Amino acid sequence: MAKFSTIGIITKPSDIRLADTVRALLEYLHSKSIDVIVDETAGDLLQDTGVTVHGRDAIVEHCDLGIIVGGDGTLLHAARSLAPFDIPLLGINRGRLGFLVDVSPLEMTLVLEDVLSGKYQEDHRFLLHAQVIRDGEVIAASDAFNDVVVHVSDVVRMIEVDTYVNNHYLYTQRTDGLIVATPTGSTAYALSGGGPILHPSLNAIVLVPICPHTLTNRPIVVDAGSYIQIDLSQRNNAPARVSFDGQVSVDLEPNDRIQVNRQSHTLRLIQPVGHDYYEILRAKLHWSEQP
Amino acid sequence: MAKFSTIGIITKPSDIRLADTVRALLEYLHSKSIDVIVDETAGDLLQDTGVTVHGRDAIVEHCDLGIIVGGDGTLLHAARSLAPFDIPLLGINRGRLGFLVDVSPLEMTLVLEDVLSGKYQEDHRFLLHAQVIRDGEVIAASDAFNDVVVHVSDVVRMIEVDTYVNNHYLYTQRTDGLIVATPTGSTAYALSGGGPILHPSLNAIVLVPICPHTLTNRPIVVDAGSYIQIDLSQRNNAPARVSFDGQVSVDLEPNDRIQVNRQSHTLRLIQPVGHDYYEILRAKLHWSEQP
Amino acid sequence: MAKFSTIGIITKPSDIRLADTVRALLEYLHSKSIDVIVDETAGDLLQDTGVTVHGRDAIVEHCDLGIIVGGDGTLLHAARSLAPFDIPLLGINRGRLGFLVDVSPLEMTLVLEDVLSGKYQEDHRFLLHAQVIRDGEVIAASDAFNDVVVHVSDVVRMIEVDTYVNNHYLYTQRTDGLIVATPTGSTAYALSGGGPILHPSLNAIVLVPICPHTLTNRPIVVDAGSYIQIDLSQRNNAPARVSFDGQVSVDLEPNDRIQVNRQSHTLRLIQPVGHDYYEILRAKLHWSEQP
Amino acid sequence: MAKFSTIGIITKPSDIRLADTVRALLEYLHSKSIDVIVDETAGDLLQDTGVTVHGRDAIVEHCDLGIIVGGDGTLLHAARSLAPFDIPLLGINRGRLGFLVDVSPLEMTLVLEDVLSGKYQEDHRFLLHAQVIRDGEVIAASDAFNDVVVHVSDVVRMIEVDTYVNNHYLYTQRTDGLIVATPTGSTAYALSGGGPILHPSLNAIVLVPICPHTLTNRPIVVDAGSYIQIDLSQRNNAPARVSFDGQVSVDLEPNDRIQVNRQSHTLRLIQPVGHDYYEILRAKLHWSEQP
Repeated sequence: MAKFSTIGIITKPSDIRLADTVRALLEYLHSKSIDVIVDETAGDLLQDTGVTVHGRDAIVEHCDLGIIVGGDGTLLHAARSLAPFDIPLLGINRGRLGFLVDVSPLEMTLVLEDVLSGKYQEDHRFLLHAQVIRDGEVIAASDAFNDVVVHVSDVVRMIEVDTYVNNHYLYTQRTDGLIVATPTGSTAYALSGGGPILHPSLNAIVLVPICPHTLTNRPIVVDAGSYIQIDLSQRNNAPARVSFDGQVSVDLEPNDRIQVNRQSHTLRLIQPVGHDYYEILRAKLHWSEQP
Repeated sequence: MAKFSTIGIITKPSDIRLADTVRALLEYLHSKSIDVIVDETAGDLLQDTGVTVHGRDAIVEHCDLGIIVGGDGTLLHAARSLAPFDIPLLGINRGRLGFLVDVSPLEMTLVLEDVLSGKYQEDHRFLLHAQVIRDGEVIAASDAFNDVVVHVSDVVRMIEVDTYVNNHYLYTQRTDGLIVATPTGSTAYALSGGGPILHPSLNAIVLVPICPHTLTNRPIVVDAGSYIQIDLSQRNNAPARVSFDGQVSVDLEPNDRIQVNRQSHTLRLIQPVGHDYYEILRAKLHWSEQP
Repeated sequence: MAKFSTIGIITKPSDIRLADTVRALLEYLHSKSIDVIVDETAGDLLQDTGVTVHGRDAIVEHCDLGIIVGGDGTLLHAARSLAPFDIPLLGINRGRLGFLVDVSPLEMTLVLEDVLSGKYQEDHRFLLHAQVIRDGEVIAASDAFNDVVVHVSDVVRMIEVDTYVNNHYLYTQRTDGLIVATPTGSTAYALSGGGPILHPSLNAIVLVPICPHTLTNRPIVVDAGSYIQIDLSQRNNAPARVSFDGQVSVDLEPNDRIQVNRQSHTLRLIQPVGHDYYEILRAKLHWSEQP
Repeated sequence: MAKFSTIGIITKPSDIRLADTVRALLEYLHSKSIDVIVDETAGDLLQDTGVTVHGRDAIVEHCDLGIIVGGDGTLLHAARSLAPFDIPLLGINRGRLGFLVDVSPLEMTLVLEDVLSGKYQEDHRFLLHAQVIRDGEVIAASDAFNDVVVHVSDVVRMIEVDTYVNNHYLYTQRTDGLIVATPTGSTAYALSGGGPILHPSLNAIVLVPICPHTLTNRPIVVDAGSYIQIDLSQRNNAPARVSFDGQVSVDLEPNDRIQVNRQSHTLRLIQPVGHDYYEILRAKLHWSEQP
């Protein structure tokens, strides 16, 4: 595998509890004579160290690897901003679950030793691209690494949406929301909504309604090459919003349309050799654990 | 069964599409020499008719039956306000689903003919009583006919709650919310959340988490005499709210406690002779319909 | 609470792996001058000890407590045979899960010390009574502590059943089977079928279809005083059977009818003071465990 | 699209209720000067007509289209036998559901008019290939169009299986069975087991456990190029069997291994122009029907 010479460090913004991990990481990389560019998200963590921090642009321009220190949310954010520039990401887990960032701080130097010498696995994960269309014009757009969620802003009411796949009518739903998830996102919010697990290598998208008021619901998995269109119904009278990875959101109006399709670029996720997806499922979700 | 001499009419507030039904109902009741008190919710529907409308107090004071014209939501609202005064309710369905208000306008006079001559079924449904406790003081309280729902205000984040039943620790959940539902409410939001159907005669409460981020969730049904206590965790950092029947809500703060138990009074629901709960399930939810 | 003077010991039949536990139990009870009657299920375990074993009748006649050594299945079997005679049961867990028999061999003497001195909790659990009716005659009958299951004998075909509750038509299902479970049984096969958990104190029965070929299924919980009637449809052409606690079964023919209602007697389950049902759910089912 | 000159007719074996449809079909095809080879499954239906019936070999050798008269089961059977020879199939629905055979007898001639003139859609569906391995030797093998199901022969006990995907350990399950389904099979038994719907164009396989006794189960969708391996555990002590499309089955012994992977050939399913998969889901499963 390729070796990395310039590495960017991105953290959960201003979370000073991460300072130890980031400092140890910096020290290690310097000891290996790696050029390091520290993202401004780590600024507060490195006060008094004399380390200069830079904007995301500097990482885009110079780095051939991004190391994420934080939780899945930190990686989701970085994935959306760095995937277009083909910069692979490696995650050090300082969050709660760590599906995407599953290297623990304790094994960090051991893993990096391997990674820097070219021993690692690379997982290509696709992103979704979504556009919000109002009166025929695109008023907002975003990528999503986990999911695009059209949802009510006030949880005890229901929105009404009409959904199409490749211009074929799918269904009209009265629900709390509708999740369009990548395989990566299938273990996030889509899982909470009752969706199946999709292996990350799958070129597929899953549609999972959130608490639909019907017995006849069932998640559907379609090809990732499909065009998904979600129309906020004219009959809809609940406040609605669309969220990308649960991090960026746009308020919707009746008749707004959300179009979702596979983004052309993928994210390269760097993992230790021997990384096993099913082991993660069992360890972190207790998947199929026997009573 | 008892006969009714003074009847209150309550409608979905200011929904002028109901005017025809309400006027036909008034005319019919007058033709039967029934004293009628029209609730102010029907004011806009009866303009130019010379009919006087009254506050809810007048219905409480004088009526021995309330007729609800509207949807389930209209009846839920009336149930909370009239159940304490032991005034039975009969619903005329002008809403979408009509679980609770399942007499159609077309069969209205036929059904009333029977009801006024004492031929009807009476279903006793219990309500929940909930208190919101902050720093040891009750800051809000409400009854609920369907459900008490503790939920996130912003759907793509999760709240964290610790739940106790009769002072026994149940679980800590990270979810969109937690539904505490009566048998009546088991076919409402609790159904959307994946809960079982509870027959209305059952003296039981069901707890249904909303999209918990775990595989190990399963709804639990406990005796309606139980004391449910839901503590918004100190670790919770998402905006939270508690809603009663999805109609009244109170914003919550970390460490707030919601206590729920069975209200001492019940609501008397008047239904046509031969009313069959399972038929309603099959007709309105397509329950167990064969493909 | 009452003290016990004559105790019966019942084990998983002929499972010699239990010999150590049973011998330690015997020794302990003798040291406490308790009269012990050993059931014939323990015969093979006590060879060469000179201990005499007896038929179940002797336990029925003389014992005021039954101690079960084995798994939940062992207790289920004993519950059906001893509940009619009001003999309480205490379970020592040598099985896999141990929902009902949750005293471990390690804590056995500690728990018995308390129980023999009258310190224990008593949980009253009801049983179901089922009759199989063919051409108007009862051809078989059995109690069930967990569940009555009408099911296909060959898993890849479907049976067709019509179900009634208190003579009201519920539904027609094409399924692998239909489970009628007590609260005790709600954590057994009914759980596998997707049913809710019912607290043991609940006077309710849950009906859970097994893999129905429809999207519109949802478990229903009805009062335990209900009469459940399951008719094997005339159109049914798959081999069918009814099973009681998964231990006793009767082959069915088209038009056979299964009637289920609550048995009049209950089983008294003896548990250590401080026994907590929810803790068992969390410990043994990983219920609501956070990822 | 290609035109068809020699057509085979295959029916549900010996179901004389289909005689009208088959005779009308024959008459129509003769009127169009199409060469017809009638499969022996239709023998009993055509007695007294002088029509000669042939073995499946004749259809394989001569036909460029197979018309199936019956239900989904009839088509499943034909699919396994004809797919290897690249003979497309068109189904006339005389069964109950008709997911795969959705041309009704009433519209039969109208649809055939189009099909014979080259106007039709062609859907390529893949099959699974499964091998049963005992003591290192393949003792049985079969294709499956819907699913390969490893299951208990006696529904109230559980089998224990260890599953691997591409040699990675997935999980150990104690269940009634495990379904490995194609997208085609995702609306059959896998749906009953709670699996997601997979669009037929998807190159994916879904694994759905049947009533696993655990809360932590969730179906998983993997790439159709995966090698699935299901080992009947040594600890398994319940009678087990493997079934292919619910039509062919092999009894299993402890330590038997079932290997499943995508069959290299696909089945060509002929459908009317305008055939819409989602419409079938809504019409036949009431998918997402609103209450």
